[in-house]
Amino acid sequence: MDIITLIGLVAAFLTTASSIPQVIKTIKLKETRDISFWMWSLLSAGIFLWLIYGISKNDLPIILANGISMFLVLTVLSLKIKYK
Amino acid sequence: MDIITLIGLVAAFLTTASSIPQVIKTIKLKETRDISFWMWSLLSAGIFLWLIYGISKNDLPIILANGISMFLVLTVLSLKIKYK
Repeated sequence: MDIITLIGLVAAFLTTASSIPQVIKTIKLKETRDISFWMWSLLSAGIFLWLIYGISKNDLPIILANGISMFLVLTVLSLKIKYK
Repeated sequence: MDIITLIGLVAAFLTTASSIPQVIKTIKLKETRDISFWMWSLLSAGIFLWLIYGISKNDLPIILANGISMFLVLTVLSLKIKYK
């Protein structure tokens, strides 16, 4: 694997994993006042389209990264709606 | 432009623009307690690597989307540090 592909994979891992601390924090705090509802709504729509894009292009890294992100982002959005 | 490329561009636009409502909300509220510091730190690192990846591959959409995201994400991270 060349260095550029490796950088892309680490980048995909970091941006996907970044939602995990927010999920954990929100489950613990049960407070979402400072979190933007519109941010997580736009993010859900965007990641859904990335997933369609990845499936259309049969691109496994894009499908995997956005499939996992979709789950995490919808979790934060649900918690935002629940604890608003 | 084919439909798959269009879906990718709309996806890139939505995921990039999603940080804007969070920036606006945080500037107005001056409160960041419910926002995860680690989320925005991992996101900054990930987007920085996406930017390196885009520059290495000379891929303008990746450079543009992540260049704008970098600015927005660093703004939220700075506000998180300022108002913690």
